[in-house]
Amino acid sequence: APHPEPEPGSSLAHRCRRRSSAMPDAPFPPFCAFLAALGMLCLAMVGTWCQRWRGGFSLDGSSRTFNWHPVLMVAGLVVLYGAGEHGRRGALPPPLPPHSSFPSPKSLTAALVYRIPGTWSGPKLPWKVLHGSLALAAFVLTVLGLAAVFRFHNSQGTPNMYSLHSWMGLATVLLFSCQWAAGFGAFLLPWAPAWLRALYKPIHVFFGSTILMLSVASCVSGINEKLFFSLKNGTTAYKFLPAEAVFANTLGLLILIFGVLVVAALARPSWKRPDSDSPDSRQVRHAPGG
Amino acid sequence: APHPEPEPGSSLAHRCRRRSSAMPDAPFPPFCAFLAALGMLCLAMVGTWCQRWRGGFSLDGSSRTFNWHPVLMVAGLVVLYGAGEHGRRGALPPPLPPHSSFPSPKSLTAALVYRIPGTWSGPKLPWKVLHGSLALAAFVLTVLGLAAVFRFHNSQGTPNMYSLHSWMGLATVLLFSCQWAAGFGAFLLPWAPAWLRALYKPIHVFFGSTILMLSVASCVSGINEKLFFSLKNGTTAYKFLPAEAVFANTLGLLILIFGVLVVAALARPSWKRPDSDSPDSRQVRHAPGG
Repeated sequence: APHPEPEPGSSLAHRCRRRSSAMPDAPFPPFCAFLAALGMLCLAMVGTWCQRWRGGFSLDGSSRTFNWHPVLMVAGLVVLYGAGEHGRRGALPPPLPPHSSFPSPKSLTAALVYRIPGTWSGPKLPWKVLHGSLALAAFVLTVLGLAAVFRFHNSQGTPNMYSLHSWMGLATVLLFSCQWAAGFGAFLLPWAPAWLRALYKPIHVFFGSTILMLSVASCVSGINEKLFFSLKNGTTAYKFLPAEAVFANTLGLLILIFGVLVVAALARPSWKRPDSDSPDSRQVRHAPGG
Repeated sequence: APHPEPEPGSSLAHRCRRRSSAMPDAPFPPFCAFLAALGMLCLAMVGTWCQRWRGGFSLDGSSRTFNWHPVLMVAGLVVLYGAGEHGRRGALPPPLPPHSSFPSPKSLTAALVYRIPGTWSGPKLPWKVLHGSLALAAFVLTVLGLAAVFRFHNSQGTPNMYSLHSWMGLATVLLFSCQWAAGFGAFLLPWAPAWLRALYKPIHVFFGSTILMLSVASCVSGINEKLFFSLKNGTTAYKFLPAEAVFANTLGLLILIFGVLVVAALARPSWKRPDSDSPDSRQVRHAPGG
């Protein structure tokens, strides 16, 4: 079937988007709502698991202190982190030459506005601040989650940091802290030079998705490990698949699905903010033009 | 700094590549050699772990039968699968309209030939057959790996399929089998219609990376679980970090790094084969032209 000739104005961006899209086009908001619901479900399930089967929560150094660990990690390093990644809308590599025929942000917005109504036409700074704030909140929850498991181990005389789960988890949190500090320095400090931002941006985007994948793998190995610890004896042994095991296994699979869908959404070019380095996207205002 | 005006012939493809690239440009072959070396290292380490610390290999239903499970899974579902994913060079979405100004494969190859010398100028079918064959070999190893753990469980009277590791792993293998069958039907059967290929291709590409991520998460949770099983008592307990634990934890981290790098390389538009649906890429030959 013959394709219509693309219009001269919007052809390049439109073709770039079409050619490098990883999945068929679909509107963003319903998918985003589905992800939010899935994240909330994961959070509700990890809370229910700890409350109903693992004795609930306390700060006394017992296993009820440990229970803060899975809840805070899923809340911080998976759900809030995933939400924060979707606050980043400007994840495109270096701009085209200024004299190219790339259409203005305004004309692009007119074509794409049905995907995320209203967000691509305004300035970029509020989105960057939202992204950085959500990531910072996620990081605070993550550190509290680490504090919970260290306090539990120390009060029980158990060594810290021996399992593969703990090595992978700590590596993830360390990467996350570097990511946040470097992102703040490069993208939110107004005096960061443009060449540094252009150089660092693809690295920041790459590690953004990588950290989420590592978080999800850490969660899954942690749930698996906790079930082997908790369900050891008699009729509740893990291998007899009691209700708790089915519930927590299902939680693990839902966390996996959440992670895969967030990473897939981040990789879709048509859901990225098009005006990567328009004047609007910098803190230093330029003279209005174009 | 001003950018040079792009040449009319190669401008579109070149700009598409530049704008949607996820990382700075780098040549493919050295990275590929590094990945191959990393994969071989993972394979050597999982073999060493089972041989030196877990009693070696046999088919008698004992834990030495189980030892085939980690070796075959790392060999099949991680290393060979990862290699097979790099056999796919044509991972681009639907083609441009036939009357567009997209440059011919030959002129593109001239610009990109230093990345993968010689592979982008020839026909696509051999690469598709290589990709499908490596994936099939990976699948055979995976099934043998599953058979090893089922035989071990059955001869010990242990239930199958109760842990989160097993649920996630089996889900990964089931996805993999659907992926292979659908890929064979759509891309290797010569009578598959072009619209079906165009429709299914982005889905196939998406699940290609997703299956590798799930495989890696399964491996990591499996290593973690096995270490808790094996290192239970006295001076060799996991929590005292004996040499075996350090070795296997390191193996787990290397598998993670391998998976992240393969997925990152697959996501790089500049490392994908440019002539997605040129006449060369179909089994049915067209009259030579252009």
